[in-house]
Amino acid sequence: MNLRIIVAFRDPRRKYRMTTSSQFLARLGTRLPIIQAPMAGVSTPRLAAEVSNAGALGSIGIGASSLTQAWNDIQAIRALTDHPFNVNVFCHQPADRSAAQESEWLQFLSPLFNSLGIKAPDHLEEIYKSFLEDTAVFELLLEQRPNVVSFHFGIPSKEKIKALQDVGVYTLATATNLSEAIAIQEAGIDALVAQGIEAGGHRGVFDPEADDEKLSTHVLVNVLTQHSRLPLIAAGGIMDGAGIRAALQVGATAAQMGTAFVLCPESSANAGYRDNLRNHSPNASTRLTKALSGRPARGLLNDFIAYCESSDAPMPATYPLAYDATKQLNAGASKQGNHQFAANWAGQGVPLARELPAALLIEKLQKEMADAQK
Amino acid sequence: MNLRIIVAFRDPRRKYRMTTSSQFLARLGTRLPIIQAPMAGVSTPRLAAEVSNAGALGSIGIGASSLTQAWNDIQAIRALTDHPFNVNVFCHQPADRSAAQESEWLQFLSPLFNSLGIKAPDHLEEIYKSFLEDTAVFELLLEQRPNVVSFHFGIPSKEKIKALQDVGVYTLATATNLSEAIAIQEAGIDALVAQGIEAGGHRGVFDPEADDEKLSTHVLVNVLTQHSRLPLIAAGGIMDGAGIRAALQVGATAAQMGTAFVLCPESSANAGYRDNLRNHSPNASTRLTKALSGRPARGLLNDFIAYCESSDAPMPATYPLAYDATKQLNAGASKQGNHQFAANWAGQGVPLARELPAALLIEKLQKEMADAQK
Repeated sequence: MNLRIIVAFRDPRRKYRMTTSSQFLARLGTRLPIIQAPMAGVSTPRLAAEVSNAGALGSIGIGASSLTQAWNDIQAIRALTDHPFNVNVFCHQPADRSAAQESEWLQFLSPLFNSLGIKAPDHLEEIYKSFLEDTAVFELLLEQRPNVVSFHFGIPSKEKIKALQDVGVYTLATATNLSEAIAIQEAGIDALVAQGIEAGGHRGVFDPEADDEKLSTHVLVNVLTQHSRLPLIAAGGIMDGAGIRAALQVGATAAQMGTAFVLCPESSANAGYRDNLRNHSPNASTRLTKALSGRPARGLLNDFIAYCESSDAPMPATYPLAYDATKQLNAGASKQGNHQFAANWAGQGVPLARELPAALLIEKLQKEMADAQK
Repeated sequence: MNLRIIVAFRDPRRKYRMTTSSQFLARLGTRLPIIQAPMAGVSTPRLAAEVSNAGALGSIGIGASSLTQAWNDIQAIRALTDHPFNVNVFCHQPADRSAAQESEWLQFLSPLFNSLGIKAPDHLEEIYKSFLEDTAVFELLLEQRPNVVSFHFGIPSKEKIKALQDVGVYTLATATNLSEAIAIQEAGIDALVAQGIEAGGHRGVFDPEADDEKLSTHVLVNVLTQHSRLPLIAAGGIMDGAGIRAALQVGATAAQMGTAFVLCPESSANAGYRDNLRNHSPNASTRLTKALSGRPARGLLNDFIAYCESSDAPMPATYPLAYDATKQLNAGASKQGNHQFAANWAGQGVPLARELPAALLIEKLQKEMADAQK
């Protein structure tokens, strides 16, 4: 105990970082510098509550939920934990619709619908409403006041951010590069989730059409420490306690982990998803693709992604329109026991995923962090 | 001092790693777990010697050199240092020539030659001989016995590896994924350079046509620690002492750094390259592209790469044929003060590059490593 304090004083940078980290954890009200990633469609109130009860920060994603589901999920967490938790919303620019692009995409997918004997849709729906235009969800958050709210795909107006902060909410937003980080900082958000290219699920890029340098988590954190004093949460490729320590080493204040939690029994990953995660090849197994949803996202390679990687494939319909088609394909395919059309989100670290109840996983991570300390 | 030993004993993994690291450094004869990457065309005998004199492992790359140049370079290092150094060779599969593909590529580049007023070549030459078929270089290495020889793009026969080891050479080879690592281990090579997607210059993939999972350095090191007991040298995105410590934290035995050394006055980077490195945008600045040489390599985005990224661009001629054309374009352009056709190799960490003499850089890295230790 004393040792650590002495060593901290020897290194002013380390001392600063420890201070930042302690303040950050104190503000969050959690004991460990670990955030379970929101993962809409995979995380559950039970997973989040188990994680929060174990001393880390549990999260749910409500970007794909109805208002009622979102309300229910928040009540469900509250029933299971008194600890802080995080609620994530999608802040994408609403779809810029192009009838030609949408019909070209549906046409391209029609052989898949035919092969599964499912009726192809004749148009695509915007299945998720962006938080940028969803007043009802904004009011829900203002009323429910979760300890933490995180934004993905962009950020809301300064007024909305301020309003949430005024009722005590701590705000996070995802940055995949320096420009996004600067925009987040200038909007007054409290902390940055630095999402590297390794991360599973949707990449948080603000503009999916813009050039993407695809920085790894470590390079991104390293670059952001030079340009921002906001607490940085490293996300992408972190699978164990040594990985958390390594991220803290390069300047992160905490680590966010998603893929590491998908196999927890408390997640809502279905049997097909779990099998695919367990049976992944130790080699090339994930792809960053726009084919599933219209936005770049990393998932396990499957027949659907392979089909969409063909050289004559058109541009997928924009987010979330493409997702409408994929969800219909997957619904039909999975009824036939075929899980090759599912969005089985997974990060590059998937070969390192462990199958443990969330509380035991957190305990293991904590032990590994202690072991990794020199 | 005593503290560290106590802590090491508390954690068997850490103790194992420390032992491996000490044995590795003892075998290499270097004091610090830092390797200056070979970087053919950028590294120089002086750079390598300064690095080795400072306690790390200096390297030269002779894959692009004539036999005489290679011999001269080795003598030049020996004149400047008594410390160990590393000599790197290219082990690519010799080009699988396709007259149609080569002429299509030249045709595609002809507007660039025209715009610069340079005569376009009517055919492409295989400008580098692979070590796999270069008996003269193999004999040079057997005779000169550098302390370390490293292989890139593949590995030579077991017989050649054994012959080098029998004269006292320690061998390294680059792996970008688990399959390559297994092949390297089975061939009897002594240690693995785990090259992540962040790395600048040529990606060490054995087969440039194969699927590439593009693992980040940290994920790759983490995965390889699960499947190999060979010492792992982490390469890609490591720019400072905290980054070195973080790599050791996840299981690496040493770190290899290239981009961090390009701005050293001892490198042979020309003024245009240095200016481009200094003036890089803090955002999207590097690209992994086959356009420059025919193999995937990461460099600063320039007019040439942008031209080759157009949607109607054909597949570049195979390595090293495409490089022949690019080098001619660049030779012509740079005479006109235009550095937009150069292979300005750089990793994702380029915004973090510092401009210091090699000895001072090593000293700084060592201090940062000590500071980063808790």
